[in-house]
Amino acid sequence: MAGTDPDLTRQLAFLLEADRLKRIERMTLLADGSRRENSAEHSWHLALFALVLTERADEPVDPWRVMAMLVLHDLVEIDAGDTFAYDDAGHETKAEREAAAADRLFGLLPDGQGRALRSLWDEFEAAASAEARFAHALDRLQPVVLNHARGGGPWLEHGVSVDRVLARNRPIADGSATLWAEAERRIRELEAQGLFPPA
Amino acid sequence: MAGTDPDLTRQLAFLLEADRLKRIERMTLLADGSRRENSAEHSWHLALFALVLTERADEPVDPWRVMAMLVLHDLVEIDAGDTFAYDDAGHETKAEREAAAADRLFGLLPDGQGRALRSLWDEFEAAASAEARFAHALDRLQPVVLNHARGGGPWLEHGVSVDRVLARNRPIADGSATLWAEAERRIRELEAQGLFPPA
Repeated sequence: MAGTDPDLTRQLAFLLEADRLKRIERMTLLADGSRRENSAEHSWHLALFALVLTERADEPVDPWRVMAMLVLHDLVEIDAGDTFAYDDAGHETKAEREAAAADRLFGLLPDGQGRALRSLWDEFEAAASAEARFAHALDRLQPVVLNHARGGGPWLEHGVSVDRVLARNRPIADGSATLWAEAERRIRELEAQGLFPPA
Repeated sequence: MAGTDPDLTRQLAFLLEADRLKRIERMTLLADGSRRENSAEHSWHLALFALVLTERADEPVDPWRVMAMLVLHDLVEIDAGDTFAYDDAGHETKAEREAAAADRLFGLLPDGQGRALRSLWDEFEAAASAEARFAHALDRLQPVVLNHARGGGPWLEHGVSVDRVLARNRPIADGSATLWAEAERRIRELEAQGLFPPA
């Protein structure tokens, strides 16, 4: 690409590679039930959750850092795929697969920028800051909102018990007590309708 | 929803309604050509463009405001649909259809928050700030990157001339001279390959 700043060439190559996240399918169904959600549109939805709900964070957070983490957080799935929240075997190898993906993907960027964005992704993964804890809370809240709208959706499809759903989502409380109270209320509402398998 | 803060109920209703953006189809094809892009994943891609390219803006910009505008900018398409960039008849009614959609959608939020996000959307629509001009630049650059990767894609499919493509994308220069130079270079590269219809 003669005439182009080599850093810009790398940035645009990274952005073109990122397009592949649109082809990574998650378990969650869209609210209208028409198909499963992909990880790119999920990440957009989370950025919108951040924009609307930032004041619900229990600790002070920098809104830009929350949104930037959420925009980046699933990119590694381009190589590592989406791991269903209740897939125990998949979770045993998830960290290793995703770290290798992060090496390759952030490595496409100019060096300093690649290191900076990798560091933001590492911070999210480790839930190592108020922003990361709140970003994780939103990442769990969003499927609760969609699955509640679908009367249980993938939880029922895979026979996940109400106790596992509650345990999986309780970390929402590490980011926001208010949002966890609402998530628990919606899960209990489905339970009261008898939608979960008996214990 | 007894026990829930009414503002939170409104925020979550807005976020659930926003899910419908995932069903709005654009003309642009994914880089692998497998299907058309939807407006939700397009908005995610733009937020990532903002994260990576903010330093390419010619005027100083607040990165959070650029990203927030891009996350919001297409929501109105839930009611108004996507208008193809080269659909002249569609563009005659676009502003009116989208303003009505903005009234309804931002009206779902708590009043103060609805007004604040509507104001950010209005600012984007009017290209009324450095952030809005840079956000528009990214919104035009992204399809150039994808269409270049597809050897012309929807431009060729619809027989759009190189002059119209250049005219449509020239406002990239209002946000970033560097990004416009690169967009023009990629469009001219397709032209040199004889991919556009003869003038």
